[in-house]
Amino acid sequence: WRAVVSSTSLPVLLAAALPLKFMAPPITDAEQLLDNPDMKAKMELLILRIQKEFCESLEAEETSGKKFSIDRWRRQNEEEGGGITCVLEGGEVLERAGVNITVMRAPLSPKLQESMRARGKTLPADKNFEFFAAGVSSVIHPRNPHVPTMHFNFRYFEVQDQHGQNKHSWFGGGADLTPYYLNTQDVVQFHAALKSACDKHGPDKYPLFKRSCDEYFLNAARGERRGVGGIFFDDMESPNPDSDFNFVRDCADAIIPSYLPIVRRRKHEAFTAEQREWQLLRRGRYVEFNLVYDRGTKFGFATPGARIESVLVSLPLTAKWLYKHDPQPGSPEYTLTDVLKNPRDWV
Amino acid sequence: WRAVVSSTSLPVLLAAALPLKFMAPPITDAEQLLDNPDMKAKMELLILRIQKEFCESLEAEETSGKKFSIDRWRRQNEEEGGGITCVLEGGEVLERAGVNITVMRAPLSPKLQESMRARGKTLPADKNFEFFAAGVSSVIHPRNPHVPTMHFNFRYFEVQDQHGQNKHSWFGGGADLTPYYLNTQDVVQFHAALKSACDKHGPDKYPLFKRSCDEYFLNAARGERRGVGGIFFDDMESPNPDSDFNFVRDCADAIIPSYLPIVRRRKHEAFTAEQREWQLLRRGRYVEFNLVYDRGTKFGFATPGARIESVLVSLPLTAKWLYKHDPQPGSPEYTLTDVLKNPRDWV
Repeated sequence: WRAVVSSTSLPVLLAAALPLKFMAPPITDAEQLLDNPDMKAKMELLILRIQKEFCESLEAEETSGKKFSIDRWRRQNEEEGGGITCVLEGGEVLERAGVNITVMRAPLSPKLQESMRARGKTLPADKNFEFFAAGVSSVIHPRNPHVPTMHFNFRYFEVQDQHGQNKHSWFGGGADLTPYYLNTQDVVQFHAALKSACDKHGPDKYPLFKRSCDEYFLNAARGERRGVGGIFFDDMESPNPDSDFNFVRDCADAIIPSYLPIVRRRKHEAFTAEQREWQLLRRGRYVEFNLVYDRGTKFGFATPGARIESVLVSLPLTAKWLYKHDPQPGSPEYTLTDVLKNPRDWV
Repeated sequence: WRAVVSSTSLPVLLAAALPLKFMAPPITDAEQLLDNPDMKAKMELLILRIQKEFCESLEAEETSGKKFSIDRWRRQNEEEGGGITCVLEGGEVLERAGVNITVMRAPLSPKLQESMRARGKTLPADKNFEFFAAGVSSVIHPRNPHVPTMHFNFRYFEVQDQHGQNKHSWFGGGADLTPYYLNTQDVVQFHAALKSACDKHGPDKYPLFKRSCDEYFLNAARGERRGVGGIFFDDMESPNPDSDFNFVRDCADAIIPSYLPIVRRRKHEAFTAEQREWQLLRRGRYVEFNLVYDRGTKFGFATPGARIESVLVSLPLTAKWLYKHDPQPGSPEYTLTDVLKNPRDWV
């Protein structure tokens, strides 16, 4: 063993140990990730760490003893990258939980070029583009209707033409909470944790991204938001990518303190069959938002060869629809829908 | 009474009786519908009749005694029309069944103008357009996994500018079957009934619209069709609108003979919890298709003030998602997915 150690350089040893730190070995060769100041490498290491920490903190709350299953996959063209999809289904606390990372580089389809141009990126029409994307995304659907559903996503994009010119790079992300019953304590705690991460990077961040979140997670046809919001940002492309990265990292590190205390506090609360039914109807609305409006899901459906099973771990295990199910004014269910129609300031 | 009759013209009396023939009074004033050769009136009378006949034939199969609830509604701006939404939820045979008619005229939103231009309609950019739409649409989700889900839709559109110029009118429609288990007898019967309606209007119709159906009801991201097809057509705008109308009428009249015998034959078949689970997972795919791909649902989400509850009666009562649930090769579930990936000719 000593002989091996002495004949092997320290970086190579560290690289060999790297897979053990995460849910599965990185998508990119470990040797390329370590001590690499390139943003692509930094982002991959961040999302690997966030995935590991979040999965472990959730497993600690799951009373059935079930663990996340770990599915490391490559795109059909293996050079285009792949991902690690961690799923826990049918638990006692976690009805369906997905924590997904993706690291991919692929040609940018004409449809996606168009949607990026529509959002203000200058991509000359006569070039072929390729993109790099690295992101972590997660949706947690607990079984108990008193525990809210939570989503977060942090991603880094690079786009450049085939000559390495016309380069753009940006960050996006956010986190939002979807309760079935309104517990102000939970909502305030969630927002406060995200706000304190934002505030480290300036007082303008939280108010701006809180408002973006209320605007983005809107089911326009229903005139209601998906939940009680959180933060949302996209196309973050400041002159200093490292400061953007630090912002993203701080937000990602705020997820566990924003959400896990709520799970812990509510997971043993008793609930009725009617409350469960209400939760499933609201999950129908979650499905509507994700399939009709969500940019990430649309990106998945529009990317040739996308791994649709990984995209759709965001959907609940079960959802229901009933014609014109409107809660009684004055009921707790009505209180929730009122907040979804009229977003509030929480902190 | 005699005095009333003799002082009242026959058309007015007939018009007064018209509401009794349908699930609810027509959307347009009954006096305007009778003996009116205008296609808008003919189409409204057709869809009112189809709705009534189909609801009654389904109620005859429902063993719980539950009947369709009838919801007649107007758009917020009442001059824009409205609809009649008939829903039966939570029956023994019919888990969720919706039969909807809509008759509306409204300004054509820029987004919808764009999508019509993309499909080849010449709509000059400097004009305001309004559209008229009359259609019947229905999705039946039975409780028993051995009874397929069935959808049909027949619609008539007119578009014209504010001066009544640049007018287009066309029909669209179709019917498709979504079984959970493949029973060749059912599929052949369904297709044969539609084929014989098509064949009255020329031997080219069924093969063409059968192929269109397989192309249209494709969940591209999954590489599988929604079901075993049927017929689908759109933008039918021949020089003779009456012959188009007759084609649509004959197809609509083929729905009951194409589907009801299957319901009758299968509704008492025993099924296991595993078969029910499989049905709910397939219903998840139905939700995916409707919310991501379906033109009618997109039209609903894109129409300002659309009645989203009526659009979404197409969704099942319950749907499920599980990560990478792939049926075992050789199982009946696998046999179904194989047909969804590789459409067949049935008649």
